[in-house]
Amino acid sequence: MEALVLEKKDVLSLRDIKLDEKLGPHDVRIDLHTVGVCGSDVHYYTHGAIGPFIVREPMVLGHEASGTVTELGSEVENLKVGDRVCMEPGIPDPNSRATRLGIYNLDPAVRFWATPPVHGVLRPSVVHPAAFTFKLPDNISYAEGAMVEPLAVGMHAANKAQIKPGDVAVVMGAGPIGMVTALAALAGGCSQIIMTDVQQPKLELAAKLGPIRPVNVAKENVLEVVNELTDNWGADLVFECSGNERAAAGVFAPLRPGGTVVFVGIPLEPVAYRVAEAQVKEARVENIFRYAHVYPRALALMGSGKIDVKPLITDTFAFKDSVEAFDYCVNMPPTSVKAQIKLA
Amino acid sequence: MEALVLEKKDVLSLRDIKLDEKLGPHDVRIDLHTVGVCGSDVHYYTHGAIGPFIVREPMVLGHEASGTVTELGSEVENLKVGDRVCMEPGIPDPNSRATRLGIYNLDPAVRFWATPPVHGVLRPSVVHPAAFTFKLPDNISYAEGAMVEPLAVGMHAANKAQIKPGDVAVVMGAGPIGMVTALAALAGGCSQIIMTDVQQPKLELAAKLGPIRPVNVAKENVLEVVNELTDNWGADLVFECSGNERAAAGVFAPLRPGGTVVFVGIPLEPVAYRVAEAQVKEARVENIFRYAHVYPRALALMGSGKIDVKPLITDTFAFKDSVEAFDYCVNMPPTSVKAQIKLA
Amino acid sequence: MEALVLEKKDVLSLRDIKLDEKLGPHDVRIDLHTVGVCGSDVHYYTHGAIGPFIVREPMVLGHEASGTVTELGSEVENLKVGDRVCMEPGIPDPNSRATRLGIYNLDPAVRFWATPPVHGVLRPSVVHPAAFTFKLPDNISYAEGAMVEPLAVGMHAANKAQIKPGDVAVVMGAGPIGMVTALAALAGGCSQIIMTDVQQPKLELAAKLGPIRPVNVAKENVLEVVNELTDNWGADLVFECSGNERAAAGVFAPLRPGGTVVFVGIPLEPVAYRVAEAQVKEARVENIFRYAHVYPRALALMGSGKIDVKPLITDTFAFKDSVEAFDYCVNMPPTSVKAQIKLA
Amino acid sequence: MEALVLEKKDVLSLRDIKLDEKLGPHDVRIDLHTVGVCGSDVHYYTHGAIGPFIVREPMVLGHEASGTVTELGSEVENLKVGDRVCMEPGIPDPNSRATRLGIYNLDPAVRFWATPPVHGVLRPSVVHPAAFTFKLPDNISYAEGAMVEPLAVGMHAANKAQIKPGDVAVVMGAGPIGMVTALAALAGGCSQIIMTDVQQPKLELAAKLGPIRPVNVAKENVLEVVNELTDNWGADLVFECSGNERAAAGVFAPLRPGGTVVFVGIPLEPVAYRVAEAQVKEARVENIFRYAHVYPRALALMGSGKIDVKPLITDTFAFKDSVEAFDYCVNMPPTSVKAQIKLA
Repeated sequence: MEALVLEKKDVLSLRDIKLDEKLGPHDVRIDLHTVGVCGSDVHYYTHGAIGPFIVREPMVLGHEASGTVTELGSEVENLKVGDRVCMEPGIPDPNSRATRLGIYNLDPAVRFWATPPVHGVLRPSVVHPAAFTFKLPDNISYAEGAMVEPLAVGMHAANKAQIKPGDVAVVMGAGPIGMVTALAALAGGCSQIIMTDVQQPKLELAAKLGPIRPVNVAKENVLEVVNELTDNWGADLVFECSGNERAAAGVFAPLRPGGTVVFVGIPLEPVAYRVAEAQVKEARVENIFRYAHVYPRALALMGSGKIDVKPLITDTFAFKDSVEAFDYCVNMPPTSVKAQIKLA
Repeated sequence: MEALVLEKKDVLSLRDIKLDEKLGPHDVRIDLHTVGVCGSDVHYYTHGAIGPFIVREPMVLGHEASGTVTELGSEVENLKVGDRVCMEPGIPDPNSRATRLGIYNLDPAVRFWATPPVHGVLRPSVVHPAAFTFKLPDNISYAEGAMVEPLAVGMHAANKAQIKPGDVAVVMGAGPIGMVTALAALAGGCSQIIMTDVQQPKLELAAKLGPIRPVNVAKENVLEVVNELTDNWGADLVFECSGNERAAAGVFAPLRPGGTVVFVGIPLEPVAYRVAEAQVKEARVENIFRYAHVYPRALALMGSGKIDVKPLITDTFAFKDSVEAFDYCVNMPPTSVKAQIKLA
Repeated sequence: MEALVLEKKDVLSLRDIKLDEKLGPHDVRIDLHTVGVCGSDVHYYTHGAIGPFIVREPMVLGHEASGTVTELGSEVENLKVGDRVCMEPGIPDPNSRATRLGIYNLDPAVRFWATPPVHGVLRPSVVHPAAFTFKLPDNISYAEGAMVEPLAVGMHAANKAQIKPGDVAVVMGAGPIGMVTALAALAGGCSQIIMTDVQQPKLELAAKLGPIRPVNVAKENVLEVVNELTDNWGADLVFECSGNERAAAGVFAPLRPGGTVVFVGIPLEPVAYRVAEAQVKEARVENIFRYAHVYPRALALMGSGKIDVKPLITDTFAFKDSVEAFDYCVNMPPTSVKAQIKLA
Repeated sequence: MEALVLEKKDVLSLRDIKLDEKLGPHDVRIDLHTVGVCGSDVHYYTHGAIGPFIVREPMVLGHEASGTVTELGSEVENLKVGDRVCMEPGIPDPNSRATRLGIYNLDPAVRFWATPPVHGVLRPSVVHPAAFTFKLPDNISYAEGAMVEPLAVGMHAANKAQIKPGDVAVVMGAGPIGMVTALAALAGGCSQIIMTDVQQPKLELAAKLGPIRPVNVAKENVLEVVNELTDNWGADLVFECSGNERAAAGVFAPLRPGGTVVFVGIPLEPVAYRVAEAQVKEARVENIFRYAHVYPRALALMGSGKIDVKPLITDTFAFKDSVEAFDYCVNMPPTSVKAQIKLA
C-alpha cells in the first residue's frame, strides 16, 4: 500500500510499502480518512529521533487519525462495518502490571504508532484493536475525529488536575497542546483560563476559544494578571504546556496555596525546581504521559457541544501532498495550529 | 425595621421588628436588594418546623440574598462601601473543630439565617461577617446574586462528586435543587445530564438549560435511556435531588461499575438501601449538607458565562407583596422554579 | 482427581471428578497445599445457592488457597517451579471495560472459584493465570498463605477507606471478616479499633490482636465508648462487617463529621438508610466487592510482620476429613474463627 | 523570666527577659517541661537567619515543647489545670483564607515560635491557644511529648503521601526528619522502608526502628535494592528528607509507574527536575510545609504503641546547661539524633 514513509532524517517519500497485518479476533480493519500532523511527526522528520527513540528503518508517520471500519474480528461486538471512528495510537501489553492496574499508558512495552519501530497511519488502512477504536458521534466530522488524539492529552491533563468547579487556571504555552489543554480545562470545570505565550497571533486565536485571558509575557506580567483576577490569592491550577525550561521553572509563582501544577510539555533539559517555593504553597505536581481512558470522554464532550476543536484545524492537505504538508509544518506560520492530511 | 415575620405556623406578617445588630471589626452592614424564597422558608410557614428546628418565637424569613455594602467593620479589607454582594447565610463558630478542619458547614453550632432561632433577611439591612460576603461580578445582577445560595447547593454536590471531564450524570428530580445541580454538574465537567421527574413542564424547562435529556419516569424507563446513552455501561454519577424515598432507593440501578451517588435531597423517611446492589458496583456514596467554600466558585462560573441562572428566576414580587409571594409559593405552578422578592 | 464435591444442597462427597485443564502460555499449574473454609462455601452446602448463584451441577468447593507451582506456561516469567504461592480465586475477562479500567473485580464476566458454575480448589491441583498467582515470602507458611484470600477483603476495605494515619475506626462484627478488616485497618494506619459483636469469645480473641477495644453491644453502649475514646468527636471510620441489617442501619451514629463508612458485610435485606443523618456529617460511604490489586500488599505486610493472621487459624483438618470439616463449620463454636483443610 | 536568648548570630545567653503575655479567653498558660533542640534553632544560632527570616532582635529559641497546664482562659473547655500537654508552635490568623480552608499551615501570617520576630519557649512558661494545645496520653512522657513536633512533620508527609496499605517507601536521609518520616510511614501503612544516607551510625540506628532496610549510598546502589525488594517494579513512595540537591534530583529513579514523591527536606538551591523522567512514570509530587491537623493523630499512634519515638531521644540536658546543649548540637556526633532540654 502507498504510505508516507520517513526513509531517514530529512527524507520523506510517498511510496509503496508492504505492511502485513492480520486481523485478530478482537481487532478491526479501518480505512483511514484524516490524519493530523503532530509536532512529534515533524521532529522525527527533522531530527530522525526523539530522545531514545531513533528512526533506524523506514517508518510510516502519522498517529492522529480517524477513519471507517471495513472489517471486524470474530469477537468484536462494540463496532460494526461502516462505523466512523477514531483510534488511540498506543497498544499496551494486556499482561503487564501497569496495564492490569489501569495505567496502561505507563506500560513500557506499549506499541505506539509512528514511534520507532512501529509504523504510523499515513496510509490507506490499518488493523487495530477494537478496544482502542471509538465511534464518532454523528455530529462530529472525520477532521474533528482526528483531533481527538491531541485533545486527549489536554483531557488527561485536565483529569489528573482534579479540577474543582470554578477553578482558575494558568496555561503556559499557546501551541496546539496548550490550546487543547485550555479547551479541556474549561470543559472540565474551570471558570477562567489565563494563557501565556510570546506569539501574539496564537494568543489572539486562543482568546476566541472561551473565557481565556491571553497574556503576552513579552509585554505583560502574568503575576499581575493572576493577582488581579484572583484577588491576590493565586491560580488554582497551572498547566505547563510550553516545554520551555525557563517557563517551567516559574510554575509556582502564580499558584495559590494548596494549588496544583501539571507538567504537560516536555522540556528537554532539567528544570530548576525551587523546592522551598513549592513547599510554602504545598503545591501538588502532576506529571502526565500521553493519556489513558479519555477518548470516550473527549468524544462525549465534543458530541454535546462542550468542546469545539474546529477552530484549531487551520490547514488541510490532500494525501498526495503529504510531503508538502510536512514541509509546511516545519516552518508553520504562527497563525496556524493544526495541519491535517485527508486520505479519503 | 420592617421585616417579613413568621409569627407562628400559617401566620406571616410584614411588620416592624426590633433587631439590634452591632457591627464587629470583621463585619459589614448590607442593605438587602433581592431575597429568593426557598422551599425551607415555605415549609416553616406551612408546618412551623423542619425536623428538630421548631419556630417558637416570631422569626424573620429569607436566606437567599443579595444586597449592597453600606458600612465596614474596622478590620475589613476585601470589601468597600457600595459593593454589590451576596452572602452565605450560615456563620460557623470559628473555634469549633469542624471549622478548623475547613468543614465549617458541619459545625453543629453554625448560625443559619431563617433557621430557628436565627432571623432571616427579608428586611432592609443586616450585619454579616465580611468573610461570608462576596462581591458580585459586574455582569451579574442582584437577582442572579440572590440565586447563588441555591446554586451553592448544586455546586457543593458537583464538587463532592469529583466529576471527571466527560462524565454522564443522572439528576433525579427537576425541582430547583435538581436544576442547580444540573447546571453545576455541566459547568463542572459533565458531558450529558439525564434528568428525571414526573412533572412535564419542569422537564421541558430543564431541557433548555444545556445537554440535558429529560425523562418523565411516568412515561419512560430511565434505565433504558441511560443504557442507550452509555453503551450499556451506566451513568458515572447519580445525583439524588428528589428527596423521594422510592426514587432514592433506585440510585444504584443506573450507575456504572465504580460510579458515584450524591444524596442532595433529604428524604424524611429511611431509604431502602440495598447494600449488595451498591457493592457489586462498588458505588461511592456522598451525602452533602449545604455547602462550604463554593460561593466564589459559583460567582466565577456565573461571571464567565458558564452558568446562567436567569432561566430559573420565574417570578418576582415586591417586598410589600411578600405575604402574597409566600402564598403563591405554597401552591406554585409546575412552570415556576424560583420566586424572588425585591427589597430595593 | 479426587475433590470435595458439592453434589447438591446438603450433599458433599469426597470423590473422583474429571477436570480437564489446559495450561495456557500465561498460566501455571499448582499443587494445592492448604484451603480455608469460607462462609460462602458453607452457605452453598447448606442452602445450595447464594442469591442468584445456584448450584445446578456438582461443583468442587474451596477458594482460599495456597500451594506449590509444578508447571509453567511458555510465557510465564515471574514464577518458577517449586515456588510456594497463594492465588486470587477470580479471573476477569481481560477485554472487559471494567478490567481495562483496573477495576477487574467489578467485571460481571469474572470467573470465581466455587461460584457456580466454576469449580473450586478442594482438589490436588489447578491451572491458574500467573498474573493472579503470588509468591509467598519465606517467613509465611502455607496455612498463612491460604489466609490471604479472606485478608484481601479486609485489605481492600482498608484501602477504599483511605485511612489517614492515626484514624480511629469502629469495626462492626467480630466474625472472620471483621477480624481481617481490623488487622488490615491497624496495619493501614489506624491507631485504635473499637470492635462490636454480641459473642464474647470472639471479642476476647479480637482484643488480643492489637489496640482493639472490644464492645459487647448486648452489655455496653458503643456510642459511649466511641465518645470517650474520641473526645466526643466520633470515629473517623466505620467498617460494617456484621452483615446484619439492624447493625448496618446504625453506621452513622458513631461517625465523626466528615467520616467514612465502608460496607463490607452483605446484608440480605435492604438497610434503613437515614439520609439526613448521613448528610449532617457528610458521610462518605464506600461499598466494596471482593478485592483488586491487594494480594501483593497483603503479603508484603505479612512478610514484614505488620499483619499476623496465625491467631485466626483456629482449626485444621486433613483433606480426607473434608466433609467432617464442613459439618464442623456449619455449627462452628464461637471460639473458632477459621478452619482450614490441608491437602499436602 | 529566665530564658535561652539568641542575642544575635553566635551569641546565646541564658538570662532574664521580659515577656508580657495576656491570657485570652481561648488560651491556656503552660509551664514548660521539655523542649527539643531543632536543626532550625541551631541554624539561627550559627547563621542568624534562615532564608528571609533574619534575627534582628534578641529572640528566645525552642519550639519542640511539652509542659503542664497551669491556668485556663474563660472559654476553654477541652483542657484543665494539671493536664500534661504538648503544643503546636504555629498560630495562624483565624481570618485568613488559608485558615478558613483548613490549610492553616499555609497562612502567610502564621506566628511560629522561634521564627523571628516570634519568641520560642526555652523559658519557664508560655500562653498558648487551647486549640493548639494537646493532652498527652497517660503512657506518654514529657520527653516523648516534646518529640511530637518533629514527628508531626513526618506525620504530615505520610498523610499527604496518601499511603496505601502495603506500600514500599524509600526515605532519603537518615537525619531526625528522615527517622520520624519513616516511623510515620510505617505506622501509616507502609510494609517496608528503604532508607538511604552516607552516615553508617544513623543507618544502624534506623534499622532498629522497624522493617527498615538501610542503604549506605556510598557503598551500595539503592536502585538495585529497590528493584530486588519490589520485583523490579519500583517503590510506591519516595520521601526526600535529605535536603540535598543531588539526592533530590534522583527521586524519580527508584519510583514505580504511578508512584508518589514527597519533598520533606528543604534544599537551598534549585533541584534539577527532569520532567520527562517524572512523566514516563506519571509521578505525583507533593511538597509539604510543616503540618496541619496531625498532632492528635501523632499522639493517638504513640498512645496505642504504633509509634515509639524513645529511641530517637539520644541526649538530654538541664535547662541551666542550655548553651552547652546548643554547642553540642552544632557538632552533633552521628550517633545522636535528638537532644532535649529539661526545664522541670
